Order: sequence, then C-alpha cells, then structure tokens
Amino acid sequence: MNKIIVDEQTPAIFRNNWKLCVGTGRLGLALQKEYIDHLKLIQENIRFDFIRGHGLFHDDIGIYRELTTEAGETKPFYNFTYIDRIFDMYLELGIRPFVELGFMPKLLASGEQTIFAWEGNVTPPADYDKWYDLIQATVSHFIDRYGLEEVLSWPFEVWNEPNLSNFWKDANKEEYFKLYRTTVMAVKDIHPDLQVGGPAICGGSDEWITDFLHFCKNESVPVDFVSRHAYTSAKPHKVTPDYYYQKLFENTHMLDELKKVKELIDASPFPHLPFHITEYNTSYSPINPVHDTTLNAAYLARILSEAGDYADSFSYWTFSDVFEEADVPKAQFHGGFGLIALNGIYKPTFHLFSFFNQLGEEQLYRDESTLVTRKSDGTLAIAVWNLVMETGEGYSKELELVLPAHAKNLFIKRQTIDEDHANPWKVWKQMGRPRFPWKKEVHTLQQAAEPHLRTARMESMDGKITLPLLLTKNEVSLIEITAIEDETDTYIGLDDSLIPSYSKEWS
Amino acid sequence: MNKIIVDEQTPAIFRNNWKLCVGTGRLGLALQKEYIDHLKLIQENIRFDFIRGHGLFHDDIGIYRELTTEAGETKPFYNFTYIDRIFDMYLELGIRPFVELGFMPKLLASGEQTIFAWEGNVTPPADYDKWYDLIQATVSHFIDRYGLEEVLSWPFEVWNEPNLSNFWKDANKEEYFKLYRTTVMAVKDIHPDLQVGGPAICGGSDEWITDFLHFCKNESVPVDFVSRHAYTSAKPHKVTPDYYYQKLFENTHMLDELKKVKELIDASPFPHLPFHITEYNTSYSPINPVHDTTLNAAYLARILSEAGDYADSFSYWTFSDVFEEADVPKAQFHGGFGLIALNGIYKPTFHLFSFFNQLGEEQLYRDESTLVTRKSDGTLAIAVWNLVMETGEGYSKELELVLPAHAKNLFIKRQTIDEDHANPWKVWKQMGRPRFPWKKEVHTLQQAAEPHLRTARMESMDGKITLPLLLTKNEVSLIEITAIEDETDTYIGLDDSLIPSYSKEWS
Amino acid sequence: MNKIIVDEQTPAIFRNNWKLCVGTGRLGLALQKEYIDHLKLIQENIRFDFIRGHGLFHDDIGIYRELTTEAGETKPFYNFTYIDRIFDMYLELGIRPFVELGFMPKLLASGEQTIFAWEGNVTPPADYDKWYDLIQATVSHFIDRYGLEEVLSWPFEVWNEPNLSNFWKDANKEEYFKLYRTTVMAVKDIHPDLQVGGPAICGGSDEWITDFLHFCKNESVPVDFVSRHAYTSAKPHKVTPDYYYQKLFENTHMLDELKKVKELIDASPFPHLPFHITEYNTSYSPINPVHDTTLNAAYLARILSEAGDYADSFSYWTFSDVFEEADVPKAQFHGGFGLIALNGIYKPTFHLFSFFNQLGEEQLYRDESTLVTRKSDGTLAIAVWNLVMETGEGYSKELELVLPAHAKNLFIKRQTIDEDHANPWKVWKQMGRPRFPWKKEVHTLQQAAEPHLRTARMESMDGKITLPLLLTKNEVSLIEITAIEDETDTYIGLDDSLIPSYSKEWS
Amino acid sequence: MNKIIVDEQTPAIFRNNWKLCVGTGRLGLALQKEYIDHLKLIQENIRFDFIRGHGLFHDDIGIYRELTTEAGETKPFYNFTYIDRIFDMYLELGIRPFVELGFMPKLLASGEQTIFAWEGNVTPPADYDKWYDLIQATVSHFIDRYGLEEVLSWPFEVWNEPNLSNFWKDANKEEYFKLYRTTVMAVKDIHPDLQVGGPAICGGSDEWITDFLHFCKNESVPVDFVSRHAYTSAKPHKVTPDYYYQKLFENTHMLDELKKVKELIDASPFPHLPFHITEYNTSYSPINPVHDTTLNAAYLARILSEAGDYADSFSYWTFSDVFEEADVPKAQFHGGFGLIALNGIYKPTFHLFSFFNQLGEEQLYRDESTLVTRKSDGTLAIAVWNLVMETGEGYSKELELVLPAHAKNLFIKRQTIDEDHANPWKVWKQMGRPRFPWKKEVHTLQQAAEPHLRTARMESMDGKITLPLLLTKNEVSLIEITAIEDETDTYIGLDDSLIPSYSKEWS
Repeated sequence: MNKIIVDEQTPAIFRNNWKLCVGTGRLGLALQKEYIDHLKLIQENIRFDFIRGHGLFHDDIGIYRELTTEAGETKPFYNFTYIDRIFDMYLELGIRPFVELGFMPKLLASGEQTIFAWEGNVTPPADYDKWYDLIQATVSHFIDRYGLEEVLSWPFEVWNEPNLSNFWKDANKEEYFKLYRTTVMAVKDIHPDLQVGGPAICGGSDEWITDFLHFCKNESVPVDFVSRHAYTSAKPHKVTPDYYYQKLFENTHMLDELKKVKELIDASPFPHLPFHITEYNTSYSPINPVHDTTLNAAYLARILSEAGDYADSFSYWTFSDVFEEADVPKAQFHGGFGLIALNGIYKPTFHLFSFFNQLGEEQLYRDESTLVTRKSDGTLAIAVWNLVMETGEGYSKELELVLPAHAKNLFIKRQTIDEDHANPWKVWKQMGRPRFPWKKEVHTLQQAAEPHLRTARMESMDGKITLPLLLTKNEVSLIEITAIEDETDTYIGLDDSLIPSYSKEWS
Repeated sequence: MNKIIVDEQTPAIFRNNWKLCVGTGRLGLALQKEYIDHLKLIQENIRFDFIRGHGLFHDDIGIYRELTTEAGETKPFYNFTYIDRIFDMYLELGIRPFVELGFMPKLLASGEQTIFAWEGNVTPPADYDKWYDLIQATVSHFIDRYGLEEVLSWPFEVWNEPNLSNFWKDANKEEYFKLYRTTVMAVKDIHPDLQVGGPAICGGSDEWITDFLHFCKNESVPVDFVSRHAYTSAKPHKVTPDYYYQKLFENTHMLDELKKVKELIDASPFPHLPFHITEYNTSYSPINPVHDTTLNAAYLARILSEAGDYADSFSYWTFSDVFEEADVPKAQFHGGFGLIALNGIYKPTFHLFSFFNQLGEEQLYRDESTLVTRKSDGTLAIAVWNLVMETGEGYSKELELVLPAHAKNLFIKRQTIDEDHANPWKVWKQMGRPRFPWKKEVHTLQQAAEPHLRTARMESMDGKITLPLLLTKNEVSLIEITAIEDETDTYIGLDDSLIPSYSKEWS
Repeated sequence: MNKIIVDEQTPAIFRNNWKLCVGTGRLGLALQKEYIDHLKLIQENIRFDFIRGHGLFHDDIGIYRELTTEAGETKPFYNFTYIDRIFDMYLELGIRPFVELGFMPKLLASGEQTIFAWEGNVTPPADYDKWYDLIQATVSHFIDRYGLEEVLSWPFEVWNEPNLSNFWKDANKEEYFKLYRTTVMAVKDIHPDLQVGGPAICGGSDEWITDFLHFCKNESVPVDFVSRHAYTSAKPHKVTPDYYYQKLFENTHMLDELKKVKELIDASPFPHLPFHITEYNTSYSPINPVHDTTLNAAYLARILSEAGDYADSFSYWTFSDVFEEADVPKAQFHGGFGLIALNGIYKPTFHLFSFFNQLGEEQLYRDESTLVTRKSDGTLAIAVWNLVMETGEGYSKELELVLPAHAKNLFIKRQTIDEDHANPWKVWKQMGRPRFPWKKEVHTLQQAAEPHLRTARMESMDGKITLPLLLTKNEVSLIEITAIEDETDTYIGLDDSLIPSYSKEWS
Repeated sequence: MNKIIVDEQTPAIFRNNWKLCVGTGRLGLALQKEYIDHLKLIQENIRFDFIRGHGLFHDDIGIYRELTTEAGETKPFYNFTYIDRIFDMYLELGIRPFVELGFMPKLLASGEQTIFAWEGNVTPPADYDKWYDLIQATVSHFIDRYGLEEVLSWPFEVWNEPNLSNFWKDANKEEYFKLYRTTVMAVKDIHPDLQVGGPAICGGSDEWITDFLHFCKNESVPVDFVSRHAYTSAKPHKVTPDYYYQKLFENTHMLDELKKVKELIDASPFPHLPFHITEYNTSYSPINPVHDTTLNAAYLARILSEAGDYADSFSYWTFSDVFEEADVPKAQFHGGFGLIALNGIYKPTFHLFSFFNQLGEEQLYRDESTLVTRKSDGTLAIAVWNLVMETGEGYSKELELVLPAHAKNLFIKRQTIDEDHANPWKVWKQMGRPRFPWKKEVHTLQQAAEPHLRTARMESMDGKITLPLLLTKNEVSLIEITAIEDETDTYIGLDDSLIPSYSKEWS
C-alpha cells in the first residue's frame, strides 16, 4: 500500500491552464440547439474561458459570397448573419472565441480538395488580396460589434494542421508561410495589438515550429503565440464504418512532447512566446470508443495535472458529440470526442474536468496519480486516479493519504467515477446498444452518468487526518475535506436512539 | 431465503388510490415560492390528483372581512385576492383542491380558542347565517372563476377532526352536526351535484362516523362521502422543543382500522359512500424525526400497496416541509411531514411515492413486502421492501423472484433507497446537523438524496427470469424489467476487446 | 360609409382550416435553436396542428447512407439521429409532421440536378427497390418510435411540385406516377390506414391532378388526399441579388383557383378526397419584400377567411425566416416568407394569424373585408381589414358595424396592425436598414412589432351595439367585445374626482 | 412654445442616486412567489442597488424565539430559516439589503401596541440586554453566511419613524436614543466598520435630526449616516374602507425639505455624513389611488431628476403592490405604493424609473421638466415631462429642443406614458373595476401597460437637430437619439417603389 504524507510547507500554485480553452465541432454546428444545450452544461459545470473550432469560413456559415451589381460587376459580400448569432451566444455563455482562421470559402479556393464529411476546402486562396480583404472585413466586423477591448483578448490562429496534406494542400510549408504573412498583416493593419499566431501543426513535424519562428524573425512577420496539437494514439489497427480501434501510448508521451516543444520555443528567436496546445485528446479519431470510456478520464487526469507546466493552454478536443467530421453520428455512443454525448449524457471525462474545476489554487502535493490542493476557505480538494491501461479485471490499488487538518471534526465528500459508476456507455451496452434511444432510455442513461457519492465524518489527530483509499481500475475521485462546525448539541434533549428502528451507524 | 414464483394468470387491477390526494400545510403557505417549487417537483415526479390542507378561511388568506359603508352599516366583504392566486397555481400544476371548509375567521368566531403556532380559530360560528353566506359566496366565486364543471369535481369536506377538542371546541358532536348541516345546505343550494362530506375525524372515535351517517339519514341531510384520518404512532415518550419521540404500531394496525371503518360504512344507511382517508402518516407530529428516515418509506410501502382495498383515496400528510404548525421550521431536518425537505431535498418517502408512480396497472402478485405489476408496454415494474422496526444493525433479507418473461434478453433497472442511499438525513448528521445550511451543503444533500441505481442484462429461460435479491434494512426498491431489442450486431466489425484497457465485465 | 348590420340568425360554423398546417424551411434547419425559438412563439400564439417542409431525405439530415461490411458488401444504413431529434421536438411543441417524402439522397440519385442554395437533389431514384426500402425503413421507424396511432394521423405526401422541371427532372409525369406508386405501396405495406397523397403540384398544371387521380383509379393505386400549392405573384419584373420584385394578382385569383381544383376533384373518380393546399403565399420568392409588409397581411386576410370553403387545409409558406433556399439570409429584413423575422421579430402577417386564432367558432357575418364571429362565452370576435393594392398615401375607409349585444355594458378591445403599427420593417428602414443589427436595435424592432391597442367601454341600445370604425391603408384589426360585469359600485364611497389631477375622460 | 437650446459645453455629471435603494412591503412577504416575480421584473428593467423594508424582527419571519432546556431554563433561540431564504434571494437578484432593525418580537416587547394590519409591535425592548444579543446574533449570522466584505456594504438603520407615536411608543425620543445606543454598540462590537445610522424619522420633526446628531456627538455614540422620509400629501379629506383621498403639495416642497435637512446636517457636529431618504412617495397611504395614476409619474420625475443634489440616496416606497399594511389588497388596483400592481402589471411610475434607467451619465441640460443626458456611446437620452396638477382635460404643452448632433442622420426613438398610454388603471376602470380579474383580463391589462413607441429618422443641420415636441397632460417621455450608420446603398438595385402597394411615407 502506498502511503503519502502531505506537509503543509510553502504550497505551489496549481495553474489551471487546462481550463483556458476547449475544442468544438465546426462553428456552423453552433447554430444547433443541442450544441448550445451542451455548451450551457459545460459552462455551468466547468466554465472554460475560450472555445476553438474549425470552419469559420466554411460555406455553411457563409461569410464569403460574391454578388453581381447592376453594372454587372462581381463584388465580395460578407454575410455575418450566422457568425454574429454564434459569437453572441458564446459571449452570453461566458466563453470567448479562440479564432481559427480557415478553411477556404469555395469562391476563394484555388482547388477542390476537401476534408471531412462536411467538406472543408483545404486549398490556398486563389487570390491572396481577396483573402486579405476577407480577414480584414471579418475582424473589423468583430470589433464593430463587440468592441476593440473585447477582440483584443481573442487569439487568432492561422489555419489548422498545415503540416498534413489532407488539411493543407500538399502540406506546402512555403505556401503556409505566405498565407500566414498575408493573414497576420490583414489583422495587424487593423490594430497592432490584436494577437495572431500559428502554425497550428499536429505532432510529428516539430521542425515546422522552428522554421516558422525563423521565418517570422527573418521576414519581420509578427507572431504572438505558437500553437500545436497533441494526440497519443497509434495508427489504427482496425477500422470499420462504425468504429476506429487504436493503441494508446503512455500519457507521459504527451508530457514529454510538450516539454520538447517548449524547449524548442525557448531556443528560438522568440523564447518567451506563449505556447498553446489548441487540440489534444487520447485518440484523434471521432469514432474511437476509447472516448466513451472511464479509461479516457483516468488517462487524461495526469495531463490536466501536469501539462500546465509546459503549455499556457491546452484545449480538449471537443466539448460535445455534436460533431460531424465522420458524418452524422450513427449511434448514441459512437466514440465521439465529446465530454457530453448526444442527448445531454455526461461521459466520464466530463467529470474529470468537473472535478478539476473544484480544485483549489494552492498545490500541496502532486505525483503521477495524486493532486492535493487547498481552497481559499481551507477546504482540501484532492484528485486521485488509478490509470490502468492493461486489459482485464482487477488492478485496484490501495493508498493512504496523511493530510494536514485544521479542525477536529471533518466532513469527507468523495465523488467517484469508475467502470461501475458514471459509466453510461456500459449501461447502454447492457441495453443492447440502441442507436436512437427513446426518452425513457435516455433518462436511464442520464441517471447512470452521475458520479458515485460517498460521505463520512472523521476526526483529526495531532493536526493530521489519515485517509485510507481503495481505488478501482481507472477510477478518478474528487475528495473534498471541510471543517465541521458541529451544531448537534444545540438540539435540546436530542436522542436519536428513541427513533423507531434506529441504527447506530447512522451517526 | 424466500422464493416467490409469479404466474401470469389473470392479473388483478392495481388501484392507485394512493395517488388521488396529498396533504399540504395551511393554504396561506401556498403563496410562498419555496412551497410552489416543491409542489412542481411533486407533480413532475408523482402527479397527485388533489391536494388538501387547512386554513381556507384563516385570516392570513383573509377571505372574510367586514367593511363599514358610508351609511355606517357593517357588511361582509369577501376577499378572493389570495385564494384565487393559490387555486390558479394549483390548477396550472395539474392538481385540484380537495376543499376543507375551515377554520373560523376571527370576525365570525364565537370564541378565541386557537390551534397551532399559526393560531387557527376552532370555535363554531357566532352566527350561522353569516357562515352560510360565507360558504355560498366562496363556492359561488369558485364556480364563476373556474366553471361549474371543474368545481363539480372538487370534494368539499366540512371542518377537520371535530372529534378532538383542540380542533373543535369541546369536540361537541351536536354542534358539528349543526355546522355540517348549514354547510352542506349552503353548497347544495348552489348546485345539488357539488360533493360534500365529513366528518373528517381522526382515529379513535369511529362511533362518530356511525352517528354522523345516521344523523344524515334521519335528518335527510345530504352526504357524498365519508372522511377520516389515520396515524399509527403512540403517545410521545419524550418531547423537546426540537423533537417529538414516539413508538409506532405495526403498519397492519392502519390497514385493520381502514377495514373496520369500511365495514362500518357498509353497515350504515349509506353503504356505498366513497371513503376518503384525508390524512395519514406514521406519526401525527410535525417534529418527529421518523419522517426523515428510510424506515418511514419502508413502513408506508405496504400502506400504498394495500390501503386502496379499503379506501377510495388516502392522502399523505404532507407533501412538503414548508409547514408551520409547530412554528417556523428550526432546522434543515426537523422531523417534518414533508416528502420534500426545505431547500428542495427529497426525503426517502418521496422516492417511495415516485417508485409507486412507476408501477403498472396490472397486479401480477402481491404480498406484505412485494408488489409485482405489469405496464401496458409489457415492462414488469416491481416494488419490494424490507421493513425492519427493530433497532440496531443487520436485518438484511434474501429473496428470489421467479417472473414471467416475454423476451430472451432483458434489461434490469433497479433503483434503491435504504439507510445508505437516498438518505440525506444521515449525511446531514455527518455534517454536524447544520440548522441553516449553505448553498454548497444544500447541493451535497441534494446529491445524497438520489436513489442508488443498479442495472444489468439477463437472459430468460423457458419464459421465466429468476431474480435473486438482497434487501438491506428498510430498503425500498423499484425494479423495472424491459425486453431488449438488441442492436449490437448492426455495428459492423464490432470488437470491444480492441479498446485499450478493455474489461470483459463491461459487456 | 359602409354600414353592416349583423343579425343573430342561425350562425354558420367558421372552419379554421387555415390552422391545420404551416410550412417550414428544410427540415434540417429544425436542429437550429433560432428555428425552435420561433416555432415556440408560433405555437404559443397560433398553435398550428401540422408542419410541412422539404428535405426529409436531404443529406444534411442524413437518413440514407451506405456502409461496407467486413465481407466487403455495401448495405444501406438508415440514420435517424437527426430526424428523431427534430420530430421529438415537433411533438413536444404540440405540432405534428405533415410528411413530404423527398428529395433524393445523393447515394440513391440517378442524376446530379439540384435545387436551391442547399442543393436538394431532384432526380428520380437510381433504384426503385432501394427507394421502397428507404420509405419502409423510415415510416416503420416512426411507428416504432411514436406508436402506430400517432403516425396514422400524419399525412404522407409524395415529393414536391413534380410538374416543375427544376423540382423533378424533366417534370416527367410518368416517372412521378412510378415514384408515387412505389412510395404509396411502401407505406401501405406497413399499414393500409396510413394516409398517402399527391401530386403536390404548383399551380398552372391542374391537368396533373386529373391525370393523377385517373392513374390511381385505373391502376388501383391507393390515394388518400390531393395536394397542390397556390401563389398569387406574377413573374418578377426586377431581380437583384438582394431582392425579387413582382406584381400580385387579386386575392380572389387564389380563391377561384381553389374552387376550380375542388370542382376538378369532385368530378374525378375520387370525388370526396380531402384537398390540401400544402403551400400558399403571395409571392413564391423567399426574397420578395412584400412578405415583410402590412399589405401581405391585409391581402391574405380574405384567404384565411374564405379558403376553408374549398380546401381542407392550407399551409402558409413559411412560419419563419430561418430559411436558406436563397442562401443564408443577408439582412434582418430580406423578404423572407416567415411570419417571424430573424431575431424573433413578428411580421405583420404573424398578427393576422394570431388575430384569426382569437376568432370564435360561430360565424355571424362574412364579406370580403369583414368576418364577425362569436365565441362560446358570448364574446364577439371580429376581424376587419382594408386591403389597398394601389401605391401612394391615403385610402382609409369608414365602416359602421351594428352588432347584437347581450349585455348593457360592453368592453371593446381593438388590436390593430397597419403601416404605422406593428410594422418593424418600416422602423428598420428608418434605422438605415442594418443588415446585422445589434441587441439594442433588435430590442427596438421587437417593441415596434407589437400591435396597437385601443380599448373602450360602450353601452348597447335595444340589444344592439353600433361600432364606427376608421380603417387605414392595409389595416387589419381584431375587435373583441365582451360583456362587463360592473363592480364599480362595490367600492364604498368611491369618488375619482377627489384624486389629484382627475380628468373626466378617464372613466 | 418653449424653445430649449442645449449646448455641448462642459457637461455636468447626472448622479443617479434615485437608483440606490427601493422600498418593500414587510420582509416576510419576500417569501411569496408573486413578490419575487415582481422583484425580478424590477431588477431586469431598473436594477436598484439596495432594498429596504420593515419587519426583520416581526414574528412571521420568527428570528427571535425562546426555548426551554431539559434543565428547565429558558434560552433565546435565533431562527434564521426564513431570513436566509429571503436574503439569499435578494443577492441572487443583484439587490442588497438596506437593513432596518425592527420591529419588536413579541417575546422581547415591553407592551402590546402594534401597527398595521400585520401587527408590528412598536414598543421598546423589555430587556435591552436581550435586544443587544439579538442584534449581535443576527448581524454575526449575516457575516457568517455572506462574508464580512459583503455585510460591510449593508447600511443598518435603527427602527422606523420613532418620531411618530404609532411607530414608537409615545414617540419617546430619549427611549429611541437608548435603543440606538444599544443597537449601534451591538453592531460595532462585531466590527467597527459596519455602517449604522438613524433616526429614520418621517418629516415634520427635523429637530430630531439635530438632537440625534448632538446626542451622538455628546455621548460619543457612533453614527455613519442620517436617514429620514419624505411624503408630499396632505391629511386625507376622505377615507373609505377602499380608498384614501388626499391633496398633494407641489413637488418642490419635497426638494425644499431635503435641502433644509441637508443644511441641518451640514451645520451639525457631523457635517459630512451621508444622508439617505429611506422612504419617499407622493402619498403615504397604501390605498391612495394617486399611486396608480400617470400623475404620480409626472410628479416624481422632477424628484428623480433633482433630489440627488441633496440626498445620497432616496428610496421609492415601494416596488410592488404585494403589501399588507392596510390588509390583503382588496382589488387589482387599490391605490398601493407599488411600481408593479398585482398580477405583474406595470404602473406608470414603473416606466418613469425604467426611463431614468436609460439616461446617460453626462447631464447636458436640466430644468424643471426636462433632463438631457448623453451616454458613453454618444446617444442622447432625454427625459421630458408635463406635470399638470389641475383637474380636467387639456393642458398639453409644446416644446422645441435644439440639440447637438454628431451625425448627419439620426434615429429618434420616443417612448411615452400619459393618460392614454401605459395607463392600465384607466383600462381597468373601463372593464368595470374587476376586483379579482381573470387571466384574459390580466393579459389585456398587461398589454395596456406598455409605453407608446414612436420612431423617426431625422437629419441634422450645422451640427444641430431640432426636435419639436407636443406633450400631453402628465406625459413622461424618454427620447433616445442615435447616429445612423446607413447601409441602404449596400442593397444592390434596391427600389421600394416596386413593392405592391408602396407608400412613400414608409421611407
């Protein structure tokens, strides 16, 4: 059994960089009611600061159009009807856009190559001047509508994963730099303090970062932040129309990657640039069932705990299964990225984020499976997890926490997700995996998605409280320890033993 | 171990007479937001047909007033401002008034004797003509506002527990008959089909019922129903300002009582009169902690299951702890009657009602601790309970149910309350019994008030399914068994074993 | 001045067939929050029974897909994720689908011809067996989910405007009959009482109806109703990227058309078939500004009043400007069909429907600009309008109504829309026609969209009340006349003249 | 005609002291749903900072109780169940308590004298030590629950109108000073920065203020603010059970009073003490119909405009007709103080406050019937009113405003209340003054309570805009003038004259 003794020495600050941003399906989906309902739940329970997704310039939002005047001239027309509705809604829900500038409107595209079921065009602009005008018109409109002060807080990221040829034609680096230069100038010509960055690459080509920063230095092109993605799944070993099966690397793999990129940046001509992981998750596939499992939460717990050491933000991809990259979802659970499944059902990873959102600012102790924090009111808030990547049963783990206590009597509240609790995916399988469940089934799945609650009252000894814990396979628990102000003796003549059927363990 | 074999012979009809009516604190409290919030929860989860409480004519609602005209004459003024607001709200929430006509407005009272912290006047009218006018004005107003058809469905009950001297001066039976006669005539003079009844007695004086019905017969006074109350607690053996401690009789005690009264009525001059239990509960005290316990639910389960054999309705006293008979509640849990505690926290008995609300109309089997029903869609819905009135630990019980099954694969959903689940009173005690808990504590208590959910998938054999059950002390469970339409094989190439960390027990 | 004397002879029944159905933009839009918000407003204020729109089988809803099995076989996959969400929502809002079966999923299409900005495929199925299977799978799914009884009440209409070559390849009638036969058989093979009809043509080719019914008769093909559309605008005389300008025919033009079709049906082999106008409006263009004007309401008033004489239902095209046939709306007011403009702003025609929704069932009088009805509570509810199709100022009209009165004192409530009231389009023009208005501007437009309210108290003479009315250009008014039960003399010593600043006209 | 030329010289600051506080019926009513519904409307439209009312220690909230221990000792018990619910709700609605410490709990009272239908006890404490304990327990509890920082912002006012013998036994000044001293010490002993003040007198005895401040100085008793009330009605000349009729003084009467008191304070030993008018209105009677009239709004407009010159806050008495000082309201309109009448109907004075809430911070011009302000976005926001205290018809007034304009094209929005608009009291009288109106009548009254909206587009000349205005009797208007950014010429080929029935005045 592992025993951890937590002293109350000078505590570190726990940096909640995990909270800065979250990913979303393409922005056009933000018109949907179910999307908005999910985002409300997210903001009520987790409250991210920013949201980032593809498709700002996709034709379903329809910002870029061309009209013919009476004189027969073709002119750009910028239609902000939908994007206004979307950004208005974001700001009402207390979340700001982390603006990804892409993909290419059909009328501006130089080719027909697209990505995803929703066919985002990934070719460079046919006319860079028109692209410049589009960027200027769009960002200027945001400032008109929301005010300069507001928009100065929004990061603008140029394109998505240009190092992959399916996201950017031929993965042409020089073309990307051209796009970046045009874009950043279009933005900075409006106001020099607007924040622009890139290169938004996925892992595996980190030389792009070095090259990008040297390009910016050499050509005096402004850059305000570096962005990159991080996934930890191997190539799929089985692909079906319904699912995608992949192995996962260790979660330290991602931490090591981030550390290396951080070092790359520190060694670049811009050593102090902010570093944003604008996408991360276990698998990069929107139909990998791992996203629906408890393992996904237990795996990512360490990332939430430690990735803030290297990245200024990291953005979980994505908050909701309202998502269409692999076509309209084909079943209630389909391996989507979402923290929330269709029909508003919380997945285990939702609770991971919700638990971390309850942690305090002071970090008293941290290791690879434990994070002890303290809140300003003295409450201890502890996240513990038991990541088990092996298949099969068993693998529970014993742990003893010895913690500082500032009160004699303490109330212990433990909320747990594991393979038997807050695991609606398992219940759905018991139901026969209904693709389009009925209201009554949905209700049962919602009930099954709630964490297991355990409470207790304990006494401290010599300013310490000792908490023995048994963690099951892939459990994640949040434990909150608060001082009790006991009012029991204010009840005159209280005697529970006089209640019919009294059991002593009640107390 | 007990083994129950349920055959699918001609099923009986399960009469849900428990659902017809529920009790409320005095009607004036129905102006309060917390009261209305609780009633909404009740209607969403249980949906009673009628609601009955004291205080229609109490001075806080202020229906009866007297004004002086310019000519110096004093005239009655009937003020319906508040009662309209209350009854409008009831009807919007889908619940109708079961109208108790009482207590006495100060300006009409013949004396000063009052009952309860809120001082309901319990003396006869000083002037029976004015009482007649008050009844007529009030009932006529209801018909004006809600329509005759609506009001014809409302029972009107004359007074409350006149057989007790603290509820009716001197418990004067002749005076009650006089009141009844005046009242019924006032109502019937408006429309002969309006329903009026009495004598609304508490237990212990059932000769009142016989006398009352003979009085009606002999004097040709109309009567549309007989009403009575039923509580099963002994005199208190300890009374403090905070709590009232009492022993409970067996729950069969109540069933026997109802049976006897039913026989009394059958032997009376009005053998087919409807019989309404217009109040029942374990203890009659609003500060008896038994109401907050799991025992209360386990105890009443049999009443809900069987009392419909004798009574046309029985009305749980009361739906909410928004209640002031023993003064403003002094603590979060104070032994109130409510199904819902202050701050919207469900008590165990709330779930008993919510579980019974999920039962079907066909009764396949019933004994003293089991009720097996079937719904129109074929779902089996089963209530089981393990009432233990002894003090101390232990007392769990094994049970095996052999049930008819119409499908090969069955989904089993079991929701449970017991001393460890859906028992917020216990958690509140762990917290140090905070009288006025903070939002965060209230939130924890709300989480702690949810039933324990267990799900499973089972296969039937030879048209039967065998369900082994372990029931803990004072557990009440609802078990729902539905046929599975298995879609698992529609997922092409499905192979859960390829998911990282796969455990076989998931399936 | 016109004087109308309304007698109280045997009243006719006013048939509110206008209320049976309303049109919607393509069903995929029903996922959007703004769409649902508008539909809620519609149902709260008007409450249509059915809703009909295009695009059930369009690829954005994605019902029809094909998957490849592990054995390499391609199989249809029917995805009901989105359509379930949409129909669930409809039923929750108290509106049922009037199901239009079309257009063609890409994977089933025999060609690439599409219609609308959203590219609905209008070619026949490449494989009629697969179409049959799609219809069966879809309708069976509806029955599984909503129950047979519910789905029996839904009309199923085969395709849309096949008499136009842009809606049905080559406007090929024989091909349509083939499609119809396959479709109706697919539905009737599930249950013979499911209702199927066609040919859903637009005006101008009514021989299709005759041919269609003879085809059904001759080939023993079932048909449960006849459907057709009706618009009253001429070809456009000016078309711009923003707007479409057309002349309107007289509104009697539409009534005459309906009458003729009704006669056609009566003369057909199926003389008693229900006749549904599944689309109607003034202009058939979604960017004709007439839809935003008061004229549109004044023009259609007579249609709502009289078209029920000929058609069993007529479905206003459409309830909301959430609509994309002519691309994403380019401005707050853009000439869309909607009763409700973007941002939840009521157009004049919304109030026309809302006013008609307040009419009674008894029709006491009707002419081309007046409709006098009585409600079950005795209230007179009167619609009057002053349609003026000429341009320019002026054109107000005087009118005197002499009406039966059953009370001495009457309360008159008049709600009016005209060019100066409930005309947000006019205010928007004053604002400089902002395409994407801010919240504050939207709020002003919402205020400007409310009808003008006038109230008065009048006395009747000899059982008659005489109401002089001045109607401005294109005014539509709803006038409600209710009996006053005067309580003024119950206020003791009332004397308004003692109030500071008293004006006699107050009374 | 009056002509006002507004220059754009250095603008003054318009101090919105009218917004700091609002009055409420006794705090116990704050448990009611209708009360809370009204307060929500108030906060959405006006958003006061503080709320003040009587009855904190009244027995319906029940803070002070006494219990007997098992040893037979009687001890105080402080019950915060209800006050917590009330203050929690206030803070959720964004309004803070301005805490009036009174009246006397029965168990602490030295006599039986009460005030109001709800019988507030107005006698001094029987035991000042117990009063001290009650104050300490209560304020300490507030700090425990809401935090010290929050409670430091709450003013604590000692008692209400002790200079009247019906509010304080014998209007005994020495006894009040004793109460004040005990109370302030109880509060300051918790934390010296908590704010306490008095003497909360009504007008007519301003020597109390001088005496009070000298008492504080001489006896070294802390005082943080001075409070007083202000009403401008004469003694009633007719009183009935339903209504109270009074003359009003000029509104300058109130301004003069405030000025004099301000001078009194300046001349006192505490010359810079904040001065709070903790109650004001026209009439001090809760059944004076003037409160329901348009006059009430036009009369108070100047008070809102100018009273901030003298008082740091002034608190309109009261926000809602949910009020019981003169018994349960006997009719829909009964002359209550409320800005909102029963059933959520806005009175004219509600709109006065809502209009003032739209004014800007810069004051460009002010006279006795005009207030011109500018907002930070450049919008001019103007309040104009035409107070007419004479009876009879007529009295309209012409006015011409010449205002600075910073744009060529301006959008004018005018919202108006007068005797014909936003006057639901008038419509209610037309209806026959129904005491307990039905839903449909309530709906009509709500419609009738909306202001009259007029909009226009104007052009400025030489940087000026000239606005001719006709003000009817007792009109209050809010006029907002905003710059138009005209987008009309972005619509290609726009030609409104091609729309059927086009009228030129539309533009």
